[in-house]
Amino acid sequence: MTGQPSRRHTIAAGLAGLAAVGGVGACTRALGDSDADKAANPALEMCLPGPEHTAREFRGPRQAGIIEDPQSHGAFVALDLATTATRDTLRRILKVWTDDIERLMSGRPSLTDQEPELAASPANLTVTVGVGPRTVAVAGATAPAWLAPLPAFPSIDRLEPRWSGGDLLLQITADSPTTVHHAQRRLVSGTGDLAAVRWVQRGFRDPFETAKRPMRNLFGQVDGTVQPRTDGPDDARLWVGADGPEWLRDGSALVLRRIRMNLDTWDEADRGTRENAVGRRLPDGSPLTAKAGSGPDVPSDLSATNSLGFPTIHEGAHIRRAAATAAHEVFLRRPYSYDDSVGSTSDAGLLFAAYCADPVRQFVPVQQRIADGDLLNTWITPVGSAVFAILPGARDGEILGQALVT
Amino acid sequence: MTGQPSRRHTIAAGLAGLAAVGGVGACTRALGDSDADKAANPALEMCLPGPEHTAREFRGPRQAGIIEDPQSHGAFVALDLATTATRDTLRRILKVWTDDIERLMSGRPSLTDQEPELAASPANLTVTVGVGPRTVAVAGATAPAWLAPLPAFPSIDRLEPRWSGGDLLLQITADSPTTVHHAQRRLVSGTGDLAAVRWVQRGFRDPFETAKRPMRNLFGQVDGTVQPRTDGPDDARLWVGADGPEWLRDGSALVLRRIRMNLDTWDEADRGTRENAVGRRLPDGSPLTAKAGSGPDVPSDLSATNSLGFPTIHEGAHIRRAAATAAHEVFLRRPYSYDDSVGSTSDAGLLFAAYCADPVRQFVPVQQRIADGDLLNTWITPVGSAVFAILPGARDGEILGQALVT
Repeated sequence: MTGQPSRRHTIAAGLAGLAAVGGVGACTRALGDSDADKAANPALEMCLPGPEHTAREFRGPRQAGIIEDPQSHGAFVALDLATTATRDTLRRILKVWTDDIERLMSGRPSLTDQEPELAASPANLTVTVGVGPRTVAVAGATAPAWLAPLPAFPSIDRLEPRWSGGDLLLQITADSPTTVHHAQRRLVSGTGDLAAVRWVQRGFRDPFETAKRPMRNLFGQVDGTVQPRTDGPDDARLWVGADGPEWLRDGSALVLRRIRMNLDTWDEADRGTRENAVGRRLPDGSPLTAKAGSGPDVPSDLSATNSLGFPTIHEGAHIRRAAATAAHEVFLRRPYSYDDSVGSTSDAGLLFAAYCADPVRQFVPVQQRIADGDLLNTWITPVGSAVFAILPGARDGEILGQALVT
Repeated sequence: MTGQPSRRHTIAAGLAGLAAVGGVGACTRALGDSDADKAANPALEMCLPGPEHTAREFRGPRQAGIIEDPQSHGAFVALDLATTATRDTLRRILKVWTDDIERLMSGRPSLTDQEPELAASPANLTVTVGVGPRTVAVAGATAPAWLAPLPAFPSIDRLEPRWSGGDLLLQITADSPTTVHHAQRRLVSGTGDLAAVRWVQRGFRDPFETAKRPMRNLFGQVDGTVQPRTDGPDDARLWVGADGPEWLRDGSALVLRRIRMNLDTWDEADRGTRENAVGRRLPDGSPLTAKAGSGPDVPSDLSATNSLGFPTIHEGAHIRRAAATAAHEVFLRRPYSYDDSVGSTSDAGLLFAAYCADPVRQFVPVQQRIADGDLLNTWITPVGSAVFAILPGARDGEILGQALVT
């Protein structure tokens, strides 16, 4: 993926810098530390790249938090507008959030923040704001047709209202869980009585993942491979263009599915069964039709057959069900694992976050094929579902949702 | 703290190594990567210290996971033995756990592990095993008097059974939440029908904390300062000695208190109120009687008064209530923040983990003073409490609890 530097990139760049000049002192921190800290340890200040201090850019035509490398911790927070909310209510919320997010992403406290110390480590924080259908109606604007609950998938869905829907979305991701927590507190409390939390879903990824060490989900599978390009060619798939509503130009859509993974029954499946269900090898994510060790990015050969004439990749293998059958069936995935188990039974899974310009056209056909016969359905159950329009970015002088509320 | 290297230390050592030799290639990984990975990127293999691969030592007279720098993610898991459990049951569990823990801490899968890929990143994993009073009885051994629920603190306690007690404890801490999750699954499923999970409490710390950037809890306060020494002089406070039961020699005690922090009412307290309640300055944790910026490790002057003759540090300030009034009132704290909020009301706080040789003698008097009048009680509530005997370490050829069950 392209985009702003990740924590890992920053560390790598720091090391490369060291190597290039042959010594310490080449790397500086992206943001200042507290004066006390600096005084106490000037050597450290000059030596380490300070990943806790790296900040991503808030201002721009598109919001941050989608195409950049995913941070290791995230919270998806849905809020519902007060029943009396008006367009003015919405504008007030978005104005406060714009200021708060810009500050927090740069490591500065929000205006009423009484814990500036917790704001001082942005740790690559991004906050991405979305709106649900009711919010667009409150604003008096026209929503795209896709901004609605997904069609039902009765064969697999066991959706719970407590993980579904919502008027507003805050996607808060950073490389420190403390940073995520603090930003969430400040942004939610910033809405006062104008909105109330509907649900919070927290997740994590491996802090040490790299391109060569991709994310694994809690089933142990390499996850989130075969992605659209984020450096231009696939932009029409990712971002709303001239055919969408004016207020959503350069915005996107987020489909968030809470997918419970039954780790207890998964434990009973052997590795052959697991690889067959996905169509990929567990050690490196390579398709069963490619050479072992070739990695997750090698294309699969869905027409290949074994010596008995059966498909090498099962008719119900996830890799086949999820494969695009048309050029537009692509979307960017940025999933987070969750584990909320508190007792003997697992309550864990994946916060499947998918971004595209039109989920009904791009995402739903894929989801339908999965619902119709994915072998993984034995172990996974969608228990939450929500669709949000991700607002365009805020350029200099603008607030988020500028074209929606002004 | 002394002990085995932390992730941060490893990174720092890697950088120092680079600096010393003036180039890449000086640092190697503590453990091998997959062959596929190595082949794909030999340069990375040689260049980065690979914090995901650093492993801590399992074998030794004392268990790991207490005196070393805390890892950024943790799960405390309590299990109850089956009602039919015998000494033999316990020995079987401890035998399996010993083997599993030794493997997992070194980055190798446990014997029946079907997800070896998730085991390959130990990320400083430590697993520390404790036993509750019933387990000692099942073993036919004599428990120390302190191995029992703490005395009640009715003025503050609102204990819930779902966060209290337990026959066995697994403290699982690592620098990756995926590693913690995987180790937990394997160790819990390894007990089969012999034990069942009673509760799981998951927490986090800031991944970027250092000695100069100490942990802050979710109130934004510097936490866990003024610790006993872990390099020898305070060993009699930390580890069970010759006056304890033979089976617990070089073991310890863990008091785990789940302390809910009311972030909603805390938001209403201004910074002056907050500093007064703790007796420390928020920016750097310095005592109110010390120079601003002098940091959390400077001693406080509890006798100091202001110009009006009032104590500079309030009678109810946490720093005064928690201060030792006798030399033995010391214990090591290794807390983790938790945030399990899913709606508008906060469900967050601190997993307060304290280690010492005798909690009744060392911990209870401090807790009593806090219960009697700590200003922080306005915002915090203990909702869970458990005491475990932390077993001695397993030396070569031994299992955990060797002297308890053989």
